[in-house]
Amino acid sequence: MTRITMVGAGVMGTALMFPAADNGNDIKLVGTHLDTDIITRLKQDHFHPRLKRPIPANIQPYFHTEIAEAIRGAEIIGLGVNSRGVHWAAEHIGPHLQAGQIILMVTKGLESSDDGELMILPDVIKSRLPASIREQIHYAAIGGPSIAGELAARRHTNVIFTSRNPDILPKLQASFATPYYHIWTSTDIIGIEVCVALKNPYALAVGLAAGIAEAETPPDIAGAKMHNYAAAIFAQGLAETAYLVQKMGGKLETVYSLPGAGDLYVTTQGGRNSRMGRLLGMGKPYSDAVEEMPNETIEGVDASVSIAPAIDAAVAAGKLSGEALPLLRKLMRIVMRNEKVEFDFDSFFSQLPFNAPKRLES
Amino acid sequence: MTRITMVGAGVMGTALMFPAADNGNDIKLVGTHLDTDIITRLKQDHFHPRLKRPIPANIQPYFHTEIAEAIRGAEIIGLGVNSRGVHWAAEHIGPHLQAGQIILMVTKGLESSDDGELMILPDVIKSRLPASIREQIHYAAIGGPSIAGELAARRHTNVIFTSRNPDILPKLQASFATPYYHIWTSTDIIGIEVCVALKNPYALAVGLAAGIAEAETPPDIAGAKMHNYAAAIFAQGLAETAYLVQKMGGKLETVYSLPGAGDLYVTTQGGRNSRMGRLLGMGKPYSDAVEEMPNETIEGVDASVSIAPAIDAAVAAGKLSGEALPLLRKLMRIVMRNEKVEFDFDSFFSQLPFNAPKRLES
Repeated sequence: MTRITMVGAGVMGTALMFPAADNGNDIKLVGTHLDTDIITRLKQDHFHPRLKRPIPANIQPYFHTEIAEAIRGAEIIGLGVNSRGVHWAAEHIGPHLQAGQIILMVTKGLESSDDGELMILPDVIKSRLPASIREQIHYAAIGGPSIAGELAARRHTNVIFTSRNPDILPKLQASFATPYYHIWTSTDIIGIEVCVALKNPYALAVGLAAGIAEAETPPDIAGAKMHNYAAAIFAQGLAETAYLVQKMGGKLETVYSLPGAGDLYVTTQGGRNSRMGRLLGMGKPYSDAVEEMPNETIEGVDASVSIAPAIDAAVAAGKLSGEALPLLRKLMRIVMRNEKVEFDFDSFFSQLPFNAPKRLES
Repeated sequence: MTRITMVGAGVMGTALMFPAADNGNDIKLVGTHLDTDIITRLKQDHFHPRLKRPIPANIQPYFHTEIAEAIRGAEIIGLGVNSRGVHWAAEHIGPHLQAGQIILMVTKGLESSDDGELMILPDVIKSRLPASIREQIHYAAIGGPSIAGELAARRHTNVIFTSRNPDILPKLQASFATPYYHIWTSTDIIGIEVCVALKNPYALAVGLAAGIAEAETPPDIAGAKMHNYAAAIFAQGLAETAYLVQKMGGKLETVYSLPGAGDLYVTTQGGRNSRMGRLLGMGKPYSDAVEEMPNETIEGVDASVSIAPAIDAAVAAGKLSGEALPLLRKLMRIVMRNEKVEFDFDSFFSQLPFNAPKRLES
């Protein structure tokens, strides 16, 4: 039995507690200040209003005001806040941490550091914890295709748990693995975190094709879908992911397995990134499209905005090739500068050993 | 201007002639014995009944009885028959070939040779041409996500042309590249042909998840889709592709770009493989499912059946690890032995440097 505390009672943080609960662990689920309604309901009848199902009996709900009590004595502390909540989480758990605890990042994202470096979220969290404790905490993360509602329905879900410290991985695996939650482990935390963060912008980009086809006048019935277009974006997204992962010191096998290809695939199958992609593909400038999705966190947009400064700095410093990332950089301009959706496909795959198209006018 | 003859007037062979025609080439489109209705209609008013649109004026239709005339003097001979028609095509074009002609394979597939080796289709064609001419012909192929109806609608489509002989690639690229048809070139014909053949069985496998979810009683609304399941299959399919490509001497970058990830993605977005996957996922044995799709070629099934002997032989001879290919081998048993759809997920990714799940009972 492991004592597990999850901070963040949204769908993903809560869903991850289902396999943990099925293993008979002692689980505390702490809402953030945004989750008060959820925790109130959970305390009342254990029903999660957004997952639309009861949570297992051995998950105890806590308000964020009770966070100190929930963290004390936990062996594993999951962070399931959204990507904008990572700094909040560091601030609120920091004072209560104890040496030897494991922080398990469920939240996905990358950030530009103050000096323009691309940082993975476990490192962001670490950098924001009190200096007195940060070296005594272990850091881990999860990658792989995992839609929360399906995990909570105990559907087969396959993921990779990762940490730079291989010694903590068996405990994590043993605490969470069930017959429906299949866990591989890897020390490639860089590769995994880069993959799972980039899947959001790239899935948004894949979703553009549906909007372009939908808005076409007159519609071309026989060629109604634009799957070829979407698939080229998918492939370029994965190739750019491979480039960035390798440049940052991650491993290629992480890209063509669960954290890269698998998670990108699942993220293209619906959700908010795809919906934003469709709106932009229909020709709406970003500033208009975002008004059609009020109060929604669109991770693909947030990730583009949060990593843009580091990408630009790395390109300017010659550490990254701008030509290797035409899709990501164009997407950043679409959501940050209202640029029109239009790709120079012939600029794709320039880092791979293929002979490129002759840059025909299009 | 290039003289191009396409053998096979189905949707893909014909669609590929659209960019070729837009480049002002001299094009002959030869139907097989199965395409007589199509050629009759094309000769009448240039309307293709399956693409549901007129073909460009500079494409001249030919009956299969006129094949000798169509092949004489062609610089490039495309083969766009279905995978079962490759032997037929070799037999019917063989006697008319002239030294220096290029055969461009549009058909996808792999075959087991008589001595149990896995063969790519360009090598199959070569082996079946008259010995007197086969060494004087150049062989090339196309890989990448390319739904025929979209290409004929002049939608952006991104592909790789490949040949062992790099000298013929610029001519192919120049003959077919247009502002909507983007062509990279590569000499990794092994990697590309393995990727494009395997996408069919793996896309069928991805499609199983939808059927499993749909057949569930009672349905679980909140976890209604099984995208996590599908995504794990997608990722394992790509990882197995990477394994086979590398074992056969192909390149990894082919796997995580257009021919691998891109083409697998597009093939999961609908079509006959997905429909068969759904039927099997719903619990129908293959022998029943196939009766619901009469007279349809299901490339994922055909590929599984045609490569199974070579895979089994290579595993028996120790040239391939059976443990590296659990998904493909299970799929073969599903379509060849009516086995039930049920995967041992914990057996996935065993060739990658991850620590595997503890093989829990499921």
